[in-house]
Amino acid sequence: MSKLVSDSWKIIQEGFSAEKNRFFESIMASGNGRMGLRGNHEEDYTGDTLKGTYIAGVYYPDKTRVGWWKIGYPEYFAKVLNAIDFIGIKVGINGENVDLATCCFTNYKRELDMKESILRRSFTFVGKDGSEYEIKTERFLSYADCDLAVIKYSVTGLSEEADVVFTPFLNGDVKNEDANYDEKFWEYVSGEAGKSVSFLTMKTLKTNFNVSAAFTWELTGSDALENEAISRNGGEFVGNRVRAKVRKNATVTLTKYISVISDRYYEADKISNIACHKAEEAKKAGYESLFEAHKAKWDKIWSMGDITIRGDIKAQQGIRFNIYQLNCTYSGDDPRLNIGPKGFTGEKYGGSTYWDTEAFCLYFYLGTREPQIARNLLEYRYDHLEKAKENSKKLGTQGALYPMVTMNGEECHNEWEITFEEIHRNCAITNAIKVYTEYTGDTSYLYQKGIDVLVETSRYWVSRVTFNSKKNIYMILGVTGPNEYENNVNNNWYTNRMVKWSLQYTADTLENMEKADKKLYQEAVDRLRLTEDEVDSFRKISQNMYLPEDKELGIFLQQDGYLDKEQTLVSDLKPEDLPLNQNWSWDRILRSCYIKQADVLQGLWFLNEEYPLDVKKRNFEFYEPRTVHESSLSPCVHAILAAEIGLEDKAYEFYLRTSRLDLDNYNNDTDDGLHITSMAGTWMSIVHGFGGMRIKNGELYLAPFIPECWEEYSFRLVFRGRIIKITVNKKETILLLEKGDPLEILLFTERILLK
Amino acid sequence: MSKLVSDSWKIIQEGFSAEKNRFFESIMASGNGRMGLRGNHEEDYTGDTLKGTYIAGVYYPDKTRVGWWKIGYPEYFAKVLNAIDFIGIKVGINGENVDLATCCFTNYKRELDMKESILRRSFTFVGKDGSEYEIKTERFLSYADCDLAVIKYSVTGLSEEADVVFTPFLNGDVKNEDANYDEKFWEYVSGEAGKSVSFLTMKTLKTNFNVSAAFTWELTGSDALENEAISRNGGEFVGNRVRAKVRKNATVTLTKYISVISDRYYEADKISNIACHKAEEAKKAGYESLFEAHKAKWDKIWSMGDITIRGDIKAQQGIRFNIYQLNCTYSGDDPRLNIGPKGFTGEKYGGSTYWDTEAFCLYFYLGTREPQIARNLLEYRYDHLEKAKENSKKLGTQGALYPMVTMNGEECHNEWEITFEEIHRNCAITNAIKVYTEYTGDTSYLYQKGIDVLVETSRYWVSRVTFNSKKNIYMILGVTGPNEYENNVNNNWYTNRMVKWSLQYTADTLENMEKADKKLYQEAVDRLRLTEDEVDSFRKISQNMYLPEDKELGIFLQQDGYLDKEQTLVSDLKPEDLPLNQNWSWDRILRSCYIKQADVLQGLWFLNEEYPLDVKKRNFEFYEPRTVHESSLSPCVHAILAAEIGLEDKAYEFYLRTSRLDLDNYNNDTDDGLHITSMAGTWMSIVHGFGGMRIKNGELYLAPFIPECWEEYSFRLVFRGRIIKITVNKKETILLLEKGDPLEILLFTERILLK
Repeated sequence: MSKLVSDSWKIIQEGFSAEKNRFFESIMASGNGRMGLRGNHEEDYTGDTLKGTYIAGVYYPDKTRVGWWKIGYPEYFAKVLNAIDFIGIKVGINGENVDLATCCFTNYKRELDMKESILRRSFTFVGKDGSEYEIKTERFLSYADCDLAVIKYSVTGLSEEADVVFTPFLNGDVKNEDANYDEKFWEYVSGEAGKSVSFLTMKTLKTNFNVSAAFTWELTGSDALENEAISRNGGEFVGNRVRAKVRKNATVTLTKYISVISDRYYEADKISNIACHKAEEAKKAGYESLFEAHKAKWDKIWSMGDITIRGDIKAQQGIRFNIYQLNCTYSGDDPRLNIGPKGFTGEKYGGSTYWDTEAFCLYFYLGTREPQIARNLLEYRYDHLEKAKENSKKLGTQGALYPMVTMNGEECHNEWEITFEEIHRNCAITNAIKVYTEYTGDTSYLYQKGIDVLVETSRYWVSRVTFNSKKNIYMILGVTGPNEYENNVNNNWYTNRMVKWSLQYTADTLENMEKADKKLYQEAVDRLRLTEDEVDSFRKISQNMYLPEDKELGIFLQQDGYLDKEQTLVSDLKPEDLPLNQNWSWDRILRSCYIKQADVLQGLWFLNEEYPLDVKKRNFEFYEPRTVHESSLSPCVHAILAAEIGLEDKAYEFYLRTSRLDLDNYNNDTDDGLHITSMAGTWMSIVHGFGGMRIKNGELYLAPFIPECWEEYSFRLVFRGRIIKITVNKKETILLLEKGDPLEILLFTERILLK
Repeated sequence: MSKLVSDSWKIIQEGFSAEKNRFFESIMASGNGRMGLRGNHEEDYTGDTLKGTYIAGVYYPDKTRVGWWKIGYPEYFAKVLNAIDFIGIKVGINGENVDLATCCFTNYKRELDMKESILRRSFTFVGKDGSEYEIKTERFLSYADCDLAVIKYSVTGLSEEADVVFTPFLNGDVKNEDANYDEKFWEYVSGEAGKSVSFLTMKTLKTNFNVSAAFTWELTGSDALENEAISRNGGEFVGNRVRAKVRKNATVTLTKYISVISDRYYEADKISNIACHKAEEAKKAGYESLFEAHKAKWDKIWSMGDITIRGDIKAQQGIRFNIYQLNCTYSGDDPRLNIGPKGFTGEKYGGSTYWDTEAFCLYFYLGTREPQIARNLLEYRYDHLEKAKENSKKLGTQGALYPMVTMNGEECHNEWEITFEEIHRNCAITNAIKVYTEYTGDTSYLYQKGIDVLVETSRYWVSRVTFNSKKNIYMILGVTGPNEYENNVNNNWYTNRMVKWSLQYTADTLENMEKADKKLYQEAVDRLRLTEDEVDSFRKISQNMYLPEDKELGIFLQQDGYLDKEQTLVSDLKPEDLPLNQNWSWDRILRSCYIKQADVLQGLWFLNEEYPLDVKKRNFEFYEPRTVHESSLSPCVHAILAAEIGLEDKAYEFYLRTSRLDLDNYNNDTDDGLHITSMAGTWMSIVHGFGGMRIKNGELYLAPFIPECWEEYSFRLVFRGRIIKITVNKKETILLLEKGDPLEILLFTERILLK
């Protein structure tokens, strides 16, 4: 049996069981922003496993699979790829292969130390003759040099002397589990197995990404009695067969220094050399020195973004796990990269970018990292603006429609109700520009690049709305809102409201720009061939946008006709109905009133300042009881709003649903990988929910409360050059300016100067 | 260049061109209800071709292909199969292979004689040495014995004496062009090449249909100088190599007698023997005698169902082509068979059954054949009732929901907006029961079987409607109406109206049954465990069904919110926009007001008697200008209604769009096969449109007019044991009772006794 142990800094697995292998592979995953690994074993494992080695930005355009082709469907669905297996070290002891699916072992323990970002594992291997050997491994993906991975594999004789054979290797013959067609993704380019350094270069078919992995190794505790360079399977497997002797109570250790280089950063014909060189340099530097540099980087991450919780060890472990994984997934130094829903922990959702990035992840990176990190998320969309314009053109509209799912700016999703109709995503992208600008106070992105995104998305809306001349209003027909349990509806309040806001924000920004920087303004006007009439039309549509509501109930209407549905509550459902998406046919879900994730309420979060508390309260009280939260992105928005309207217990309940979603395997799908993007929602639940944090007119605002079962919690905020630590306990809120110039902030209604 | 020549009874092709080969293969297709052939050449043809040999009811469950799986999706999509190629006769002349893709030839002519249902072909083969030979072929699929096919292939020496080698064969190594996955459909069972008789038996994978083809042959005009039995490709190719001498001005002819037997009619282990025996018997009977019997059957078909048009040869050819193909597709002697949209002429739509059968085809077979033929279409659905109940259960509802697309009663379609939501199909099926009963005056199907279909579909509706307590009405949310250019709409008028009618018809039928036949009534009540409350609920829902309308415009509303759409007309579209489904993205089509096919108007046709002329007129004038007729099923309904409201030119215009749809390749898709089900619509356009034929209170009603450019037209109606010929010319309408007892009918408002 294997067990997950609570700990404030570590994810600890005690014992091993094959049926939980995928689960632990997921939660033992780690990454350094450029590459990531599931918690696969280094040595052979012939049991059930989801092999996962992922290189950021390296994908394959898997063929689209649809029932009936429709005009406008994308040609391909980008897939994050399982890449060269570089962690592999086969281990033989006295001729017996170490393979936890077949051999005898005891004392299995594994821990992911999140503070140091290192994965350690130990177990006692029991030979057929009863002799015992202690195996210890540790590995990390360097956060200091993100091309490097280091693995230490040691064997200690407990009862007998033994022959140990290590075979560190690289294997390019890898597959994806999740593929639409049985296509080959990789082809062999070159490789060489050397006595000291080996390398393997593979290329993706179609997309032609070249990836080279190289490794070198060292043995301590024994001489290498034999060392044979081996190359098999047409060169797709290269490695060394290294024989050593381990004496009783002595330890022999193989350290594998790996470098992984892709042609996203270097010229394709040089990557093999660079990989070999970097692996050799790493060996020269040595394990300890590499680990120190790595740790130092993680120390910095934690010093900016840690959250502590006293009195609830599970909550503490949960929130750190979320913060850890978000930093493993996205380090923010390359605007071509983004955040897939599963990060580097699985294949699902293709590793592509969704609106999750802007609607959730952005807040986390803004609050916990230097502004450039969040800004790179905005640059990503700016760089895709031309593709978003092409996408809009393909659908017969003007301006820019960003894709629902993308790797390089091209749409990958292939359900018409999502691809063509879940168009509110444009607004999450424009809202992100506002959020970044408000948060940082930096208008440079807004005025230099953001304005192009604002104008082009506004142009899209102008061509996408329907003017109802009878009622003299603008409508938006045929959309899918954030609640994907409704398809092809008319006048989704959230979409209409966000479009109204977005058009106004564009017009206001242009007005502000003209005042603030005439030159930039004129450049933008020229570049975008913007006319006054056009800006007038933005305002006119914004002012005359139809917003469905029910005056009697005092609520906004999720969409036209929502109240015609049978009005039952989630509490009326039978347990066997849930989750609806696994038990009800799609039409039944669609015609029910049940809501997948925050929709009207998502709007009340984004436009939080524009609505008074009673409006939020009435809408929350109407919609929440109809919401099944079958998206991992749902609870956090509800936690924030519940906290705001004073439903503290409810807020805590929603927080619980997200913070240990993967660790406690709530949705029974952790095997597939982790819910990376919703982890940002967990962070938001604490900071914006419990902490009540907002930016109000450019000022930091806090309104904290503490959940009953906690003694104390603290979080840091990186805000306009400062690091501020907020500690909340039963008695008080302590504000500490850890870095930066004095700052005035608002605590509830009180104005406080932090020094 | 190949050219289609107009002729009143024949489809004539003059000249051959490779790029038109698929087109002519489609229009030269024929069938006998049990099997069908595209117009493939008997000899080799290595150019572009769509090989098509289809056996009724033999299908394969091709894997479903979807983007994202949803609960309730069917596991498979049934596919009509390209079966054993039994027409093949390779021909060599002086060692040169006859293959129109590579050899020289002149004087190509082909004609499908629809009166006799025979395909004749001739051309002059020019050898490399300039010597010429006249090739003539003819073939028919016997309508008298539907297991038989006969082919005559003759070579006449025009300039030189020559060696001729005929290789008649059977080939089981065949594929479908349209398949979701590269799966094998057939496997070899047994076969034998004999000097006189050869056979081949193949079995479909998964569905395990066994099909055996056997042939025997005879040679006239020369002795067989050699005769070698050949078997190749693991036995999947069997045949004979027959060498003969053809002298100048003399003719050598090979006649191939083929029998095709499936285990749908005989035990699997006997079909090979039966096929061989029948082929031998056919040879004994001889070509002429088989042809006479075949012709006699077709004479009967034409004597009941022919339509003549004087003064418009193209219209004459067109309507006969429609009548011919409908009879090739469905001969009505087996209730397990039905009518695929492409019949036996192509693979598209999988050869499955759609609501086309009840909404269109039924009228044709009722009017032109014995009642049993149409009744078998109803029996088909009755036999699938249990599967329709399972289907409904799968979707969480009660009673029976018939599938949108099916082979054996199981749903095959895999788009949620169609599969789960285009539920109005249930009403076409119940309406067909009414139409059959009214037309024939025969209540036996209604009271013995139809009542079960009525009650179970009514139960479905009871569980599918939504009661709106505020408005005290019943609604139907989340449907797709006949106009598939709207998806997931609320309160589609057509659906709501037909459900209202259907529930009432069920309740009325029960009431009538109780009066007419207490015993049958009581049996039905017991069998169906029917309660009074249940019948009350049918009536209550029917009476309180919400029917959207716009009082100001005086029209029924296609669905809630239809008038919120931008109200443009088809005449506002640019030519390059059309057809919309090839030029606009799906969302754009959905949010436009454009209509694919009759929707509100379909209801005004089905419930024709219930609405006065002005209502029909207003709705026609509103909806028709918004209709793009991008379904081949659209124009006929419009033709009928246009005729009824006095728009005779418009009616004729719609008629033209359907009658030569395939011959003139209007939609540029005749290559794929013919639009069989919409051919019934062409017939309806003349009979119900120009002829104004209705059944009113059980009486035949006619209100004919004649299109301006026609001199005269006549059609026959098989009606309650009579055959009535109606001839309409510029001056008068002539009614002739060709068979049966005297009958009183209504001509406009005049009551006339036919004797």
